[in-house]
Amino acid sequence: MTESHPVPVTLFVCTTCRHPEDGPEAPRAGARLAAALHAPEGVELREVECLGNCRRGPSVAMVREGGWSYVFGGLDAADGSAVVEGALLLGASADGLMPWRGRPEVLKRGLIARIPPVPGIAA
Amino acid sequence: MTESHPVPVTLFVCTTCRHPEDGPEAPRAGARLAAALHAPEGVELREVECLGNCRRGPSVAMVREGGWSYVFGGLDAADGSAVVEGALLLGASADGLMPWRGRPEVLKRGLIARIPPVPGIAA
Repeated sequence: MTESHPVPVTLFVCTTCRHPEDGPEAPRAGARLAAALHAPEGVELREVECLGNCRRGPSVAMVREGGWSYVFGGLDAADGSAVVEGALLLGASADGLMPWRGRPEVLKRGLIARIPPVPGIAA
Repeated sequence: MTESHPVPVTLFVCTTCRHPEDGPEAPRAGARLAAALHAPEGVELREVECLGNCRRGPSVAMVREGGWSYVFGGLDAADGSAVVEGALLLGASADGLMPWRGRPEVLKRGLIARIPPVPGIAA
């Protein structure tokens, strides 16, 4: 029944990350990604200053209750809809893992790390 | 008072990760790291099969209530004491961040990603 009652997902977007092609004065790709994101119901967007994935930014992270946490990198300012799609997949997942099947390509090749859930720990 | 009442830390060690110098038949560096780790009071060791950081393993992740979650990579089977030291630093942190000062060198250069806490979400 999890499919019909998705779990809320918190979506962190690093606004400090630069795209390799960003000029030094240009708005940063991470900030442009955050600005372009339209979080639907069930996805709470939070901007953060650093997710520690500076080598392979732009970066986002996704966290949900009872599920794995994910960090993705190598994104582009235009990847907002793929990121939201991934967050919704994670929220709808019955086993707390973001399914590989149906996952946007940019979230397949851009996986940086994932962390298992810790039952009982309120992060 | 947080310093004197550390928060328990869950330490995940990926046992699948190979060190770049591991032979194909050798026990994997991640498994050797896990086997050599002696988790003190306040640190719960959990072996996992994949933290998604396959490009830069061996990998560990650390999670605590009310704190940031961390993933480290580029480790070695001999880095167990540094990993435990980092977990204790995270557990003792008043602000939920692992302090840079005093952090073992291997956890400075090996930072893969970090995720902010989400109050109220039991991961």
